[in-house]
Amino acid sequence: MAFAKSGGLIPAIVQDDRTGDILMLGFMNREALAETQRSGHVTFFSRSRNRLWKKGESSGHLLKVRDVLVDCDADAVLLRVEPVGPGVCHEGYRSCFFQRLGADGTATIVAARTFEPERVYGGAKQT
Amino acid sequence: MAFAKSGGLIPAIVQDDRTGDILMLGFMNREALAETQRSGHVTFFSRSRNRLWKKGESSGHLLKVRDVLVDCDADAVLLRVEPVGPGVCHEGYRSCFFQRLGADGTATIVAARTFEPERVYGGAKQT
Repeated sequence: MAFAKSGGLIPAIVQDDRTGDILMLGFMNREALAETQRSGHVTFFSRSRNRLWKKGESSGHLLKVRDVLVDCDADAVLLRVEPVGPGVCHEGYRSCFFQRLGADGTATIVAARTFEPERVYGGAKQT
Repeated sequence: MAFAKSGGLIPAIVQDDRTGDILMLGFMNREALAETQRSGHVTFFSRSRNRLWKKGESSGHLLKVRDVLVDCDADAVLLRVEPVGPGVCHEGYRSCFFQRLGADGTATIVAARTFEPERVYGGAKQT
């Protein structure tokens, strides 16, 4: 994998293996990818917290890995997953891609909330 | 959009609007995203060529934009497209994600070629 090309981090696309929906995009360093493959649960490298971040570590909304694909240049991965729980987004949606971007740059919500983020995360911002 | 957070470039996931398959991942700066929305054809910023790159500019395998979604942190976009032609990958596949990554780090091809890259690209490496 070409981690060096992107300063040690590669984008990791998360796709629902059953529906094909894109759930989120995170970043992985070599260690995060190895941990994802070892544990069978998606583990990112959090740029804001500067540490490995097992998705769902506090919410319980884990992402079970069903398949790992790599692109032609080995600088991006596609994780096909079975999501545990009602959604992956810290704002309470099934997918983080819940807004349409208009030609004028404005974002419009196009999905319904699937859970109450306050109940799941309490005061914590993330997941 | 939070371009500054990632040094001016955000990841752009390309998904076939009809099948849900992930075709590729590229990067966009503010200008590339604006050009994508203006023209209706996916336009990346090529990190290797350091310029805007209209996908399919040489091969004719354009990506017609059907929808643009943005994630909760406004630092990634999801482009739902209608692909023109037999594939997006410069190696001759419909999707750039044509390899499975094994637990030991080895990549195995899991898709069939859909076109002959030499015929489409000639001596040029890209697309």
